[in-house]
Amino acid sequence: MMAASPLNFEVVAREGEARSAILTTRRGVIETPVFMPVGTAGTVKGIRFEELESPDLDARIILGNTYHLWLRPGIETIRALGGLHKFIGWERAMLTDSGGFQVWSLGALRKITEEGTEFRSHVDGSLCFLSPEISMEVQSVLGAEIAMAFDECAPGEATHEEARRSMELTLHWAKRSKQAHVAQIANLRKRDAETGETQTNNSRDSQALFGIIQGASHLDLRRESLERTVEIEFDGYAIGGLSVGEEKQVMMEVIEETAPRMPAEKPRYLMGVGTPEDLIDAVARGIDMFDCVLPTRNGRNGQAFTSHGKLNIKNARYAADEKPVDEACHCSVCRRHSRAFIRHLYQSGEMLASMLLTHHNLAFFLDTMKRVRQAIRSDQFANFRREYTEQLNSGLES
Amino acid sequence: MMAASPLNFEVVAREGEARSAILTTRRGVIETPVFMPVGTAGTVKGIRFEELESPDLDARIILGNTYHLWLRPGIETIRALGGLHKFIGWERAMLTDSGGFQVWSLGALRKITEEGTEFRSHVDGSLCFLSPEISMEVQSVLGAEIAMAFDECAPGEATHEEARRSMELTLHWAKRSKQAHVAQIANLRKRDAETGETQTNNSRDSQALFGIIQGASHLDLRRESLERTVEIEFDGYAIGGLSVGEEKQVMMEVIEETAPRMPAEKPRYLMGVGTPEDLIDAVARGIDMFDCVLPTRNGRNGQAFTSHGKLNIKNARYAADEKPVDEACHCSVCRRHSRAFIRHLYQSGEMLASMLLTHHNLAFFLDTMKRVRQAIRSDQFANFRREYTEQLNSGLES
Repeated sequence: MMAASPLNFEVVAREGEARSAILTTRRGVIETPVFMPVGTAGTVKGIRFEELESPDLDARIILGNTYHLWLRPGIETIRALGGLHKFIGWERAMLTDSGGFQVWSLGALRKITEEGTEFRSHVDGSLCFLSPEISMEVQSVLGAEIAMAFDECAPGEATHEEARRSMELTLHWAKRSKQAHVAQIANLRKRDAETGETQTNNSRDSQALFGIIQGASHLDLRRESLERTVEIEFDGYAIGGLSVGEEKQVMMEVIEETAPRMPAEKPRYLMGVGTPEDLIDAVARGIDMFDCVLPTRNGRNGQAFTSHGKLNIKNARYAADEKPVDEACHCSVCRRHSRAFIRHLYQSGEMLASMLLTHHNLAFFLDTMKRVRQAIRSDQFANFRREYTEQLNSGLES
Repeated sequence: MMAASPLNFEVVAREGEARSAILTTRRGVIETPVFMPVGTAGTVKGIRFEELESPDLDARIILGNTYHLWLRPGIETIRALGGLHKFIGWERAMLTDSGGFQVWSLGALRKITEEGTEFRSHVDGSLCFLSPEISMEVQSVLGAEIAMAFDECAPGEATHEEARRSMELTLHWAKRSKQAHVAQIANLRKRDAETGETQTNNSRDSQALFGIIQGASHLDLRRESLERTVEIEFDGYAIGGLSVGEEKQVMMEVIEETAPRMPAEKPRYLMGVGTPEDLIDAVARGIDMFDCVLPTRNGRNGQAFTSHGKLNIKNARYAADEKPVDEACHCSVCRRHSRAFIRHLYQSGEMLASMLLTHHNLAFFLDTMKRVRQAIRSDQFANFRREYTEQLNSGLES
């Protein structure tokens, strides 16, 4: 009854530490390095799925937040409706986080013990409890192609002692996550065998599980976390606990210390990072997968990412500017609309402002990753990186 | 230097008072009866232009609000950017209202004199003044294919005396609107002749102007308003001042009294009306054109229009309902998403809820009008109307 590995990961090109791979899931092929738009509550905010699938964006995988979906609409609803893909109407691949980071970021509202995390729901204030076992069960029902181990995150400025305590807890939870995940899949397969049915339509019996490396800014802890997480054996590995208040230089040191040591034959995922420049810098250090709310959240707040850096559409200088958001961009927004129009929409409080900037920003992030892949495959990544970064820092001419 | 008539209007089928026509503008052919989505501030709220153009909706003409665009971004900005079509990126036909109704609906914030209307801007509180001449100038800069005469609206419950005073003012303003419009076009043509240039790219020198019939619920005033408005000679005629608080039966009496008497060879436009049933009932009385905020505004508020009547997506009964919003609808939203998902989005405050319901509602309104046209052309409108209305009133089975 052994199924094939839930993911197939084949590195097809390398340049220095940078690499490009083909990640094959039950729901389609993903070329890496890849950026995953964040679909918190079952929707990538401000954009329709048809646009995510359109050639402009062609997002092959999106992220769902276990914490949000667990609280609302609730796991029984999603179970009854056949899993997350079917519930939201998305047929391509998904990854769900474990809820660990989301609960951690509630701050004073949560209490962490070895057993798990107790917290108050941001939806209705009720007392909730999340543990590795519960997270695995919820993620199994959600049915994404990739689930994440339940972890704890230490703050960026955590002391060595705090970071070690947090890392040990994460390792403990990683083992429990793995055990629960293995048991779940065995149960699903047993049930399938008994009933002659199959639960594979939502990937539940072939879900991959990634482990998460913690250790805050302490490089020795990061190395230890990596080694001991790899011993547990996951289908891929993530670097967690970055972009949580530490200096950018510290973040890059951690990535540089950790990423090249991560198993070469498995996907390497940097969680919650970052700006276009961060992505390129992390690719150069060996990262394959990214997710970040920046393109969507900043888009809603009137900020566009362009090939010449950030553009704040609220700025009065754009009031009569006929140019597109980014003159180098070929997305449907830049092909059709001017900065002046989008600024007008933003100033008028029109939803379309958020919709257009979200579309452009995602197109920009996804196009950047496409160019990164092409560069690595043609052994031009170092050149591409230099030129891209120079242009990014040159500022908008007008 | 006489240009051809700015609009060509050819009735191609009749059934009773109902009729279907081909309205040809410089920016495309419009089959009537037609519904115009409302694009208040240069955007049909919550939907991208690409969707308006998609086969689901195929909106051939949208409405822009002179009042809103005049105040923000301001007419100088739109002039500098080459007119409304170019500013917003919409190449199909447009109609602009005159600002009269919008200013009227400010209520206590405005003061109406024979010269025009003084009011406080809802944007910055500044004192503004709108008159027939100013409205014509602003609409000329906006450059829609169809402009509307500047009118005053009387409340639904206006007495005969109030309604007469309002009607006389509207007739006075109609003459001034016509004069200003004729003078403007002559000026544009003179300038074109002198400079060898042409302003036709934004339809300014071939803009059509519609007159507006007022008279509140008083049928004698409506007939008088109609006769005297027709004497001024417009390219089309509208019934204004309905759906402003009067009973539905009163509204239908006014339409029934007025529409069949309106010039048969010109478009007849019912302003600001209404529900799908209202549209069908007005078509049966001879109306060709409609605009209304219901599909967009109600969509944003969680209400869907369906072939079995209205559906409130907030209702708990839809929490696990796998059916589409309307099982008879073929729009991209109904093909893909369940009531349960859209309800979840609405409850979570997600923008996508508004976006999806707006798309569906507009698809429903525009599809209804398409079916109306097909029915009239195959002499089946009476049957269609009966069946459509019966189904509409049968309620949602589940």
